Parts: sequence; C-alpha cells; structure tokens
Amino acid sequence: MNELRRDYILDRWVIIAEERKKRPQDFIRVSKKEKPKMCYFCPGNEHLTPPEIDRIEENGRWIVRCFPNKFPAVILDGSEIKSENEILRRIPAYGKHEVIAETPEHNKNLSDLSVEHIVKIFLMYARRINEIKKDKKIKYVFVFKNHGEMGGASIAHSHTQIIGLPIIPKIIMDEINSADEYKSKTGRCIFCDVLNLESKSERRIYEDKYTIAFAPFASRFNLEVWIMPKRHLNFIDEMTNRELKSFANSLKIILGRLNKSLNDPPFNFYLHYPPDDYDLHLHLEIAPRLSRFAGLEFGSGVVINVIPPEVAAAHYRNETECNLI
Amino acid sequence: MNELRRDYILDRWVIIAEERKKRPQDFIRVSKKEKPKMCYFCPGNEHLTPPEIDRIEENGRWIVRCFPNKFPAVILDGSEIKSENEILRRIPAYGKHEVIAETPEHNKNLSDLSVEHIVKIFLMYARRINEIKKDKKIKYVFVFKNHGEMGGASIAHSHTQIIGLPIIPKIIMDEINSADEYKSKTGRCIFCDVLNLESKSERRIYEDKYTIAFAPFASRFNLEVWIMPKRHLNFIDEMTNRELKSFANSLKIILGRLNKSLNDPPFNFYLHYPPDDYDLHLHLEIAPRLSRFAGLEFGSGVVINVIPPEVAAAHYRNETECNLI
Repeated sequence: MNELRRDYILDRWVIIAEERKKRPQDFIRVSKKEKPKMCYFCPGNEHLTPPEIDRIEENGRWIVRCFPNKFPAVILDGSEIKSENEILRRIPAYGKHEVIAETPEHNKNLSDLSVEHIVKIFLMYARRINEIKKDKKIKYVFVFKNHGEMGGASIAHSHTQIIGLPIIPKIIMDEINSADEYKSKTGRCIFCDVLNLESKSERRIYEDKYTIAFAPFASRFNLEVWIMPKRHLNFIDEMTNRELKSFANSLKIILGRLNKSLNDPPFNFYLHYPPDDYDLHLHLEIAPRLSRFAGLEFGSGVVINVIPPEVAAAHYRNETECNLI
Repeated sequence: MNELRRDYILDRWVIIAEERKKRPQDFIRVSKKEKPKMCYFCPGNEHLTPPEIDRIEENGRWIVRCFPNKFPAVILDGSEIKSENEILRRIPAYGKHEVIAETPEHNKNLSDLSVEHIVKIFLMYARRINEIKKDKKIKYVFVFKNHGEMGGASIAHSHTQIIGLPIIPKIIMDEINSADEYKSKTGRCIFCDVLNLESKSERRIYEDKYTIAFAPFASRFNLEVWIMPKRHLNFIDEMTNRELKSFANSLKIILGRLNKSLNDPPFNFYLHYPPDDYDLHLHLEIAPRLSRFAGLEFGSGVVINVIPPEVAAAHYRNETECNLI
C-alpha cells in the first residue's frame, strides 16, 4: 500500500507509490554519450581551462585538479545591485564557482578510483572550501557533483563543482534549524538518532566502524542514499584518517554498485555541512536521476517515488535487482 | 552581470546567469514522440480507462473527460499506518488521483483548443476539486499538467492530473503563510502588489482587463510564466464568465507562443489556490522544462536560470527569439 512519508529533518513529504512503476510509456528515451572530439578536462588541455587554482600530484602528474568554472554562476564582482523594493529583492551573484577534475582519466568514473584517490578528492574539497570561505562576503561554500546528461552534467569527464555563495542555502539552513529544535527538545543530535535507527532498519545498506550508508526513510529519488560518519562531526577536516578512508570507501561501494547494476546511470551528490558557528552532522546525499520531477513535485513540493527505500536498500545490498531503466 | 533574486513570496533564491547558456555540451539529446499503437485516452478506448467519473459533451460526444488514474499515487484506503516514532513519520497515502483528458483529439495541444473549450476544462477542474474536497480526510486537491516526456508525461494525449492529498502541500502553505505575514504588515495582498508592479515592468507579457501574464522576477525555469486574475479571488468558481474567458485566453496565448516558438517543448503547469478557510490569490504557474535541476538545485535549493525573465518576457512578446534548444 502506498504511503506518505515525512523527511527525518525537513517538512518535506514523499508519496511512496510502488504500483506506479507499471505505468505505460509513450516516449522512447535515447541518450547518447558522445565521445567528444576534445575534452576540456583531460591532461594536455590544461591551457583550455581558466588558470589552475590547485592540484594534487602523483609521480609528477596531477591526479586531482581544481580550476575556475569557465561559465561561472557567481563571480567576484564588487558592483552593487539594489533591490527596488521589499518584493523585488536582488543582490549581486557574488562568489566563486570552481571545478575539480577528479581524475586525469577521461573514461573513469569516481567509483573506479582507488579509496586513496577518493580520499584525496575529499581533501581537495576541504582545501577549497576552507580557502573560499576566507572571503567574508561568501556565506556558504556548496559542493556538488552532476554525473551524466540527465544528472545535469555538460562535460562527461568526472568532476565536482564547488560554489561559494553570498547566502546560506535554504536547505542547509532548514536542516540546521530543524536539528536545533530537536536538540533543544531532546538534548540529542537528530542525525545521530537517525543513523542509530537506520543501522537497525531494512534501509541499512552498508556499515563499518566509522560510516553508515542507508536509503533514507522518505527518499525523494529512486535509489537515494545518504552516507554519514557515525561520529558527530561537522566537517571533512575533523575526520581522522581512518574515518575519511571509511567514508571514501563507502562512497566507492555505493557508487560502484549503482554504476554496475544500472549501467552508469546519471546521479547527483552533494555534501551537507554547516557554515562556521553552526552545528550540523556532516553527511553526503546521493540522488540517482532515474525519474523526473514534474508538475506535482515542482508545484506542490510533494514528491512521488515509485521505489520504496527498503527495496532500494536491498538492491544496493545485492539481494534483489530493481528493474528501473 | 549575474544576480541572485529572491522569490516575491517564498524564501527561494535563483541565480540569473545568462552567460552560462554558452556552456559546451558533451551530450546529444534525442527524444522521440512515438506514435503509440494505441492511446488509452482516445475516443473508442474509454473501456481501457477505469470507469468514467465526469464528462463535458458537445454534439453528443465528450470533449472533456475525467476518470481515475489507473496508477494512482493515492487511493481511498482506510487502513492505518502508524508512525514508529517522531523521526520516522508516515501516514497512509489516502486520497484520489484522477486524469482529465482535455480533448478527444490525440494530436491537439491545449493551446490548439478554442478559448471556450479551455474554459470548459477549467470548469471541470473546479467541479472535480469541489467534489473531491467533500471528503474531509482530503486536505488539499492539487491540479497540475505534465506535457512531453521531459515534462514527466507518460501519455502523450493532452491531459491534466487532479490529486486529492491527505496533507496541505508545503509550497501552498508557505505561500499562504508568507502572504499572511505581508498582509499583517501592510494590509495588502502580496500577489495584488506583485501584479501591479509587474504590469509596469519589462517582465510583463500579456494583459487585458481581467488577467495579467508575466515572467516572474525570480523565475526558476527558463521561460517561466505566471498567469493571474487581476481581481483578488481564491478560486475558479469565484470568477465571472468574462474573467474566466480572459484567463483561458491568456493561457492559450502563452502556451501557443511557447509551442510555436520552440516546437512543442515540454512543460508543467499547476494551479495555486487556497484550501477552505485560507486566503491565497489564485494563480497558475507555467514551468517550461528546457533545462534540468541538478546537484545545486536539489541539494541546496538554490537554482541557476540562464534566461533572465526580462529576456523570457520579450520572447513571449515576440520581440526577440530565445535560442534555447
């Protein structure tokens, strides 16, 4: 039977509606990954990106490389835009928008990389975040990955985007506020409570001493996964080496299983951590892009998900296969 | 220069970033509308839908027809699901999910229909909403249209969906709360103020005595349009015949221009009106689906839109062409 589930943290409802998977389809979907004649992110083409900002090397060659986004959504522009009035509010799109090429190899996915390599990518995230947030006009540095055309990527070469924004994004602030409210009532972190609950549930996918991965109770995306360090911490650089290795390993396992079971499907992931002076249990959310948000989702905020997270978790645990695409 | 704009009503920010339109694309998009062997919504196949609920006839044949969704997200199920605790909250997906075939003609889009025909579709919306909300376990009846594969439609034949939900959707409630707050400060309706502002702005697209259509200041979608009755009213059946005809005519003009200028692109639209005992200025939001939400949008709530609404409005006014797809 279908049910409505509320997100652990946010006032966000999802209709879990497995039967709707059987709907007929008038449309045939064809999406081709073109082998591009030339890749902007490949070694040898470094001169085609804006000047490099940072890199991590191995044997004298870069294995992780950071440079400005050539088509930035925000820039370090000091000009002033004034809101005309209370209703038409605008501010300059001040900030930094960077790209991290995760590997020099064009045909490798993130999950094909070694755990040590993925650790280095996370260390690059931390380095860039710490650097970008030194600019006090930047209120939050958001880290996200778009993979595949349906995942919003315009370049196929595996990469992450880092964007320093002049506002704290609403979803981050809503999570902080909701967690604060829970804490003032119970004295506990809601994310710590969630991970304890989910480690005993059928939504658990993978767990080791330091990290847990699970399909969240009110998953908005087919096969959505959250990865969380078990210890209450806010940021990558608070992790011990072991914790970070475990976190990277969990991500590799989940993305590897997603990739293998569904033949390299599109996905997004994003890191949720607090701005300075706030508390938020660090976690990474993975959103495979196997279905579409449409009128109901965009217009009402209510989401229909035809894959119950319990089924999603079994799929990742390799117990059953989701027949999805 | 790029800028961040806040929605008139909601705490929702959009980065207007026209330069990003020039990004390269590694992916080739191919989407084909298959002429289906058989259409479930065409005349002659009425026996293939669940039993008809309502129809509007002309010359003894239906021209608008309502029936239950064969794959409903919510159903009239009286069973109980108990939340396990405060964190894992769930309720039964109780409700009604219906489909309105807007025309018997398979190859007609909504904008191809006469104004009188579109008026009848709106009257059917009102009839079904009024009927469905008699069930007091249903807290809100949401009306939305998905058009085209990228718009989330699974059936190509032009149709609208009506869904009666056991909750008031978050976006509706947020709009009501924000409008209430504005009213208690100013004594005025924020939507009335918005339409007065936009009727003098370069975002105005179309206006007659009763209705205005404009590209909203913080458009989240390329070529987004809001259509609003000028008189402060809550629901379709509060409109005079002239107001309703004007509203239908505005929708026909906007969708016709969208369709013609971009060769039948995918879009969603949804009606925002208040539940009983609340006040909300009725409006219809049109969201063309020409770009994708990705990691930034889903993970942070911040949206990048590469078409400034001023450019979108000029496109609809036929002054310039957006080179979009």
